[in-house]
Amino acid sequence: MTSEQAIDRTSVTAAARRARTAAEALAPLPRSVKDAALQVIADALVAATEAIVAANAEDVRRAREAGTAESVIDRLTLDAGRIAGIASDIRDVADLPDPVGEVVRGSTLPNGLELRQIRVPLGVVGIVYEARPNVTVDAAALCLKSGNAVLLRGSSSAAASNRALVEVMRGALAEAGLPEDAVQLLSSESRESVKELMRARGLVDVLIPRGGASLIRAVVEESTVPVIETGVGNCHVYVDAEADLAMAVDILVNSKAQRPSVCNAAETVLVHEAVAADFLPMALAALAEAGVTVHGDEATQRIAARAVGEGALREGVVVPAVAEDWDTEYLSYDIAAAVVPSLDAAVAHIRRHSSGHTEAIVTRSLRRSRRFVQAVDSTAVMVNASTRFTDGGQFGFGAEIGISTQKLHARGPMGLPELTSTKYVVTGDGHVRGGGGVTSC
Amino acid sequence: MTSEQAIDRTSVTAAARRARTAAEALAPLPRSVKDAALQVIADALVAATEAIVAANAEDVRRAREAGTAESVIDRLTLDAGRIAGIASDIRDVADLPDPVGEVVRGSTLPNGLELRQIRVPLGVVGIVYEARPNVTVDAAALCLKSGNAVLLRGSSSAAASNRALVEVMRGALAEAGLPEDAVQLLSSESRESVKELMRARGLVDVLIPRGGASLIRAVVEESTVPVIETGVGNCHVYVDAEADLAMAVDILVNSKAQRPSVCNAAETVLVHEAVAADFLPMALAALAEAGVTVHGDEATQRIAARAVGEGALREGVVVPAVAEDWDTEYLSYDIAAAVVPSLDAAVAHIRRHSSGHTEAIVTRSLRRSRRFVQAVDSTAVMVNASTRFTDGGQFGFGAEIGISTQKLHARGPMGLPELTSTKYVVTGDGHVRGGGGVTSC
Repeated sequence: MTSEQAIDRTSVTAAARRARTAAEALAPLPRSVKDAALQVIADALVAATEAIVAANAEDVRRAREAGTAESVIDRLTLDAGRIAGIASDIRDVADLPDPVGEVVRGSTLPNGLELRQIRVPLGVVGIVYEARPNVTVDAAALCLKSGNAVLLRGSSSAAASNRALVEVMRGALAEAGLPEDAVQLLSSESRESVKELMRARGLVDVLIPRGGASLIRAVVEESTVPVIETGVGNCHVYVDAEADLAMAVDILVNSKAQRPSVCNAAETVLVHEAVAADFLPMALAALAEAGVTVHGDEATQRIAARAVGEGALREGVVVPAVAEDWDTEYLSYDIAAAVVPSLDAAVAHIRRHSSGHTEAIVTRSLRRSRRFVQAVDSTAVMVNASTRFTDGGQFGFGAEIGISTQKLHARGPMGLPELTSTKYVVTGDGHVRGGGGVTSC
Repeated sequence: MTSEQAIDRTSVTAAARRARTAAEALAPLPRSVKDAALQVIADALVAATEAIVAANAEDVRRAREAGTAESVIDRLTLDAGRIAGIASDIRDVADLPDPVGEVVRGSTLPNGLELRQIRVPLGVVGIVYEARPNVTVDAAALCLKSGNAVLLRGSSSAAASNRALVEVMRGALAEAGLPEDAVQLLSSESRESVKELMRARGLVDVLIPRGGASLIRAVVEESTVPVIETGVGNCHVYVDAEADLAMAVDILVNSKAQRPSVCNAAETVLVHEAVAADFLPMALAALAEAGVTVHGDEATQRIAARAVGEGALREGVVVPAVAEDWDTEYLSYDIAAAVVPSLDAAVAHIRRHSSGHTEAIVTRSLRRSRRFVQAVDSTAVMVNASTRFTDGGQFGFGAEIGISTQKLHARGPMGLPELTSTKYVVTGDGHVRGGGGVTSC
C-alpha cells in the first residue's frame, strides 16, 4: 500500500466512524427537527447561490478544457434557477411523511406479549455517483429525512461544485443543531475512496452505486458492505398480436424517445409476427420522425425494405442488428427490434436479455396481459403504458434515491421507506419462555 | 484449479441452472398446488421412515466413530417419532398463508394508471447449514411454499440422512407434478461447493448461511451472491435501577438457561449499580441453581465474595471475566456479568459488544424503557420479557428459515414473506409520459 492509499483509507474509515456517531444522534430525532433542518439547508443553499455558482464554474471550465460534450456540461452546470430548484426539492422532501417510527406490523401474542415491528434508520448510507451535482443535495436530503448519515462519493468532474454544496449543507446542519458529520463528502481524486468504502463493513450499512453499468458491476462484485444495485435498464416493449397498434406506436415512441438517456427508456421492441407487417411500417416511420435508429433483425429489415420500396419509409432508418444489440442499454436514439412468433417467445427473449428493470406489453387481451405480467420477473411490468413510468415521482413516492433492480430489500424506485430497516420491540410483564419454538440457530 | 474442483464447479452451476428453470415453473403456481405437494411430501417422508432411519444410522455410526459428543449425536439422530414431527411441521407450513401474490401496496395514480406492488418469489435460494437433518426438510418446505427453488448444502456429518430426505422429497415433487429440481442437495464433501454457490451470482438470488459464526462470516465476506446474515447472538439482559428484581431474576435465568445453545440465549447481564448489591446475590444464586457459571467483572466478584462470606452463595459460581468475555457467544451454561453506572452506560456497552440480535431491559419505568428501546439498535428489544422470545414461532409467523441480524431486506425471524421479493405492475390505457419526474439514473 502506498502512503497516499494509507492516508485515504484512514480518511474514509475516520469519516465512516464520524458518520456512525452522527447517525446515532439522528436516529431518535422527531420529524419536526429533521424537517426544520431541511428548511435551513434549503435557505442556506439559496443564500449561497453566488459561491456555489462560482465553484461550479470551475468544474464547467475544466470540463470544457477536457473537451466534454455540451450535453454533459449542461447537466453539470448550476445557475441561480437550478439552485432554487434544488432548494425547492429539499422542501418537497421535508413535506414527505417520516418513515422512521412507523409501525409496520404489530399484534398481541397469545401469551399477552405486545409485538411491534418499527421502522428505524439504516444508519450510515454510502452513495457513489457520477456527474450531476444535484444528486449531492437530493441524496443528503433523503438520507437526513430518513434519519441516516450519508457518505457521498461524487464524480471528480463535479468536485468543486460538490465541495461547495456539502460545505453549505454542513454549515446549515450545525446552525440547526444537528451533527455536521451527518453529511460528508469523500475524496473523488482516486478510486481508492470507493474501494475503502466497499470494505467498510460494520461501519457503513449500505452502499448505493448510481451511475453507469461498469461502476455498478464493480461495486456489486467487490463490496463486502451490503449493496443495493440500481438502475441498469435494458427495457423492452412487446407489441402483442392483440395490440391496439396506434396505442403501441405511441407507447413505443414515448418509451424510447421521450428521454433516451435514462434507465427506464426502452432499448428493444419485440413485435408479434401476426401484426408485424401492419405495425412495423407505422412504428418505424414514427421512430424515424423522433430521430431513432432501429437495429432490426432480419424480419424487421425485410418489412422495412418493403416499406421503403413503397415510399412509406425513408432509407437508413433500420440498420442490421448484431448479437450484442439485444443486450445493449443504448441510452441514445437507438433501439433494437425483433419479430417474435409468440408471447412466450417474447417472454423468453426478455428473460434472456433483460436487466430486470421495466418491460411493457401492449395488448387488448386481458388473458394475454395476465400471462405476460406473471411470466416476466422484472422490477416493473407495464400493461398498455410507457416504460418511462418506472419513477419514484410518477409512482407517487415524492422522491427517489435510485431505482433498485435487485430482489433483496428494495425493488424498483426507492423512496424514504426503502432507506430504513425495522426492529422488533416486544413488551411484556415478566414473560419467560416454556418449551417449544422453532429457533433455527 | 484441480480437476476435482472443475467438476464440482460444473455440478453446482448446473444444479443452479436447473433450479432456475424449476423456479420459473414454481413462480406462477397457485397456493392449492403448492400445498398439495407439501402434503404429498409429508406423506412420503412418513412412508419412507424405515429407509430414512437406516440412512441416518450411517451418519450416527460415523459420528460415534469420530468421537462426537452425545448432545450433538442426539440432534443428528432421526427416529420414527422425529420423522413424524418433521412431517407434521410440513403440514403446518402448508396451512400458512401463501405470501406470493399478496398486494403489498397499490393505488390509482393521478393520471389513472393503476399501480400495484405484488409479492413474487425470490427465485433460487441457497442455504448452507450445519448439523441437524430436519433443517433439510424445513428449508425445502418453506422455499417451496414461497415459490422458490432451493439449493441445500448441508453438513457432511448428516450427508446420508440428507440424501435420503432429499430423495424422498424429490420423488414426492415428481408425484405431485412439480419439478424435482425445485429441491436439490449439493455435495458436502468439500468447501468447494460452498465457494461455487457464493460465486453463482445471477443464478442464485440469495444465500442464507445457518450455523456457526465462522461459517456466517466467511459467506458474508466472500459471497458475490446477496447474503442474509443470520443468527449470531451475543444477547444482553440489562437490569435497570428501577427493575422489579424478582422479575429480573426470572427473566435472566430464562434468557440464559432455558436453552443455552441457541442464538437468542443471553450471554451477558448488565446490572445498574443502584440495585447490584440487592440483585446480584439473588441472581447469582438462581444462576448457580440452573448450573450457570458467571464470568463477572470486579464489582460482580466483590458482591459475590461478600455473598459467599455471608453463606448466601456457594463458592465457584463467579469466575473473573476477561476482555473476550464481553464479545463471546458462549452457547453454554456461561454468562458474563458487569455492573454499570447508568442506563446510558449499559447502552454504550451493548453498542460496543452486541451482535445486534436481542437485548432486554427489565424496568418498571416507562420513561427508561422508552430510552432503552430507542437507543438500542438490535433486531429485537425486549421490555420485561426474556430474550428467548425472538423466534418465528413465538412471534406468530408459524415457521422461520433463520433469524436475520442484518439490516437489509429482513431483520429478525424470517418467515415466508421474507422469502419473497416484490414487483410493480402498472396498468394503463395507452398512457405515455410528459416531462418531469425524478428518475435518478
